[in-house]
Amino acid sequence: MEKVNLADKFALFSEQWKPKIVGELNGQHVKLAKLQGDFVWHHHDNEDELFLVIEGQLDIEMKDGTISLSEGEFFIVPRGVEHRPVTRAEAHVLMLEPTTTLNTGNIQGERTVEEPDWL
Amino acid sequence: MEKVNLADKFALFSEQWKPKIVGELNGQHVKLAKLQGDFVWHHHDNEDELFLVIEGQLDIEMKDGTISLSEGEFFIVPRGVEHRPVTRAEAHVLMLEPTTTLNTGNIQGERTVEEPDWL
Repeated sequence: MEKVNLADKFALFSEQWKPKIVGELNGQHVKLAKLQGDFVWHHHDNEDELFLVIEGQLDIEMKDGTISLSEGEFFIVPRGVEHRPVTRAEAHVLMLEPTTTLNTGNIQGERTVEEPDWL
Repeated sequence: MEKVNLADKFALFSEQWKPKIVGELNGQHVKLAKLQGDFVWHHHDNEDELFLVIEGQLDIEMKDGTISLSEGEFFIVPRGVEHRPVTRAEAHVLMLEPTTTLNTGNIQGERTVEEPDWL
């Protein structure tokens, strides 16, 4: 039963595109990630996914449009929707998704993180 | 499918202790609330509850100690744990909890919000 300071947790890692788990509630994980560049197009069959920008800017590209997020903004990608996170500079992002969620969704590849670390 | 800007949403209401729903995913609601003063002691039988401070300070009092949260800090109150949110000045808080969650948990009273509004 400890609080989580987001800035302190972000200071603990530098890897990009490797979400770290910082909390769990009701079958969901709270994750932090540093993102820069283009990710892979993917979707999650059974999981809605929330992206909250803590620092920087993040685009969520979808087939029918792009949502551009700045600090203090979030977007929920509904299950089944193809999407691709894209950033120009490094963005610090809080994600919320079921504990069953794989970062690359339906696409298994070199960017897949099978078992994210707890911070 | 729209993004949510937290500051814009907080600007839409001034009532304290009346959580507003701003998102839904995986059976959870994302809620925003303005809190000031002492709430009622209560617990949630089946719901873990996350409090993330967006602005100000928030104490989560529990029977065996208090967690003091500042901006950018969150705490998850596990189901079953008696707690009481307390603030001196107004705090702006993002909460995450199952859609079934009643703000006053096991205690029904004048501060209970039966059906929170969507913003």
